[in-house]
Amino acid sequence: MNLTFLGTGGGLPSPQRGVSAIALQYGRDILLFDCGEGTQRQFMTASLSFMKISSIFITHLHGDHILGIPGLIQSMNLSGRTEPLSIFGPSGTVDLIKSSLSLGYFNPDYEIKVCELKPGDSTEVSGLTVKAVEADHTIPAISFIVQEPQRAGKFSKAAAKELGIPEGPLYGKLQSGKSITLNGRTIESSMVMGPPRRGRKLAYSGDTRPTDLFAEEAKCCDVMIHEATVMADLADKGLEFGHSSAAAAAEIAKKADAKKLILTHFSNRYENLEEVESEARVIFPNTNAAYDFYTFKIDYSE
Amino acid sequence: MNLTFLGTGGGLPSPQRGVSAIALQYGRDILLFDCGEGTQRQFMTASLSFMKISSIFITHLHGDHILGIPGLIQSMNLSGRTEPLSIFGPSGTVDLIKSSLSLGYFNPDYEIKVCELKPGDSTEVSGLTVKAVEADHTIPAISFIVQEPQRAGKFSKAAAKELGIPEGPLYGKLQSGKSITLNGRTIESSMVMGPPRRGRKLAYSGDTRPTDLFAEEAKCCDVMIHEATVMADLADKGLEFGHSSAAAAAEIAKKADAKKLILTHFSNRYENLEEVESEARVIFPNTNAAYDFYTFKIDYSE
Repeated sequence: MNLTFLGTGGGLPSPQRGVSAIALQYGRDILLFDCGEGTQRQFMTASLSFMKISSIFITHLHGDHILGIPGLIQSMNLSGRTEPLSIFGPSGTVDLIKSSLSLGYFNPDYEIKVCELKPGDSTEVSGLTVKAVEADHTIPAISFIVQEPQRAGKFSKAAAKELGIPEGPLYGKLQSGKSITLNGRTIESSMVMGPPRRGRKLAYSGDTRPTDLFAEEAKCCDVMIHEATVMADLADKGLEFGHSSAAAAAEIAKKADAKKLILTHFSNRYENLEEVESEARVIFPNTNAAYDFYTFKIDYSE
Repeated sequence: MNLTFLGTGGGLPSPQRGVSAIALQYGRDILLFDCGEGTQRQFMTASLSFMKISSIFITHLHGDHILGIPGLIQSMNLSGRTEPLSIFGPSGTVDLIKSSLSLGYFNPDYEIKVCELKPGDSTEVSGLTVKAVEADHTIPAISFIVQEPQRAGKFSKAAAKELGIPEGPLYGKLQSGKSITLNGRTIESSMVMGPPRRGRKLAYSGDTRPTDLFAEEAKCCDVMIHEATVMADLADKGLEFGHSSAAAAAEIAKKADAKKLILTHFSNRYENLEEVESEARVIFPNTNAAYDFYTFKIDYSE
């Protein structure tokens, strides 16, 4: 599970920052969260293949989160895509994709499946569950909670030895959840395996004022990605336009007991992000301010 | 008259090259020719203000020439634009802009005037005449010929002295085309001024197979910008997809008696453009292959 930040600017791009796009690599697939203008080129610069995108998740229909979709769809076609592409987003996404496909002379040679998610809806994609959570922006907007399924517990070699099981293929059988028969005795997998361990969890706020609901839904996530359009001195201005400050994002991460906080969606007024990062770290120490092409590997915590 | 190449890639962008966009600065205005995805950010990187764009000229409705329009329009709005923006393009441009304005939540606070140009049509913009010329691509496409009006002839100080005109404000009056009276004698401007000199001329091919019509319409231009998607060994493949080779572009510049040729719209297969440039220079020596942020000042030739 690897995150690559492809655009960390808010509203307008800048020479340093593209607009919103975050790639989540999981197995062979990429899930793309938001797709601002220029995302296809950011993929190229990051040496990531946009052909591996299985699905795109859109938080809301503001230009800096969606205007990379038409070009990405067209370039996938030029590059010979045949696999279907799924696009999920809030109410209005079906019309958005319809308009996106009507720009100029273009007809995709692959299927594009569009699905609007109401807050509370979940979907299964590439082996992950993605849940839409109501955000608090100036237009209908959703946050996303990504949950990996739970995985097998830890194998106890000591327990296996005590049961007299010889090292070898029988270990593998038990580890895969099957029971074995040894000297006429049935040994269940659960006798040598610990309890199932929870999968990794990622929470992405999209554009939003800070909300308790997001903190709650993101509870104990391994990584929280939260927008931090402004710093605390401009928090009121941020709220007016439906945004959070770095300090407020840190408060949400703290409430959620997140393991790590990554800030993004920075206003162009902040060239250097050290101060932004510091403001959050006072409240939530394990914080990083993302920059374009910043990557983060989400490890298992158990 | 300054040219800035904001995107020199063909079809797909690459880490090195954005897709088609050329800014022509004239006086205080910028005329933008084509507007591929990412153009607004290329403006920023070039330290050019996209707020100075008076009009956008679109050669044809393929994604790599148009998908920067929605973001540019929205960012102009975010940056407080109030002046109208004119957009010219081939048949289909009205629908394109209608669709572009329907992406997500957006309503411009300034007027957007859209005008479709048939081949042969001309328009006056920012003091320049821009003529649409039929191109030969896979979809309806036009090339553009930009003509500056003629300007006053050269002032002959020798002639003025011979006529006994004292240096000073009378010189300025004659230079501005007015006649003066000196010792009861009328002196016409034409007695000290040479014949009017022709204005500068720029020709931009857009995407096209090489055509005699473009060579004819571009006759004696100061700068010809011609697409060179491929090199001569792939000329047939280029023609199949409605494109020109570097050699073919050079032949057109030669036929047109252009003063300078600038190549653009390069396939991603060419990382290094030296060979592309060399191929054209054998036929038309005064050739440059453009790269992103390449600038060229068009001087008066007379």
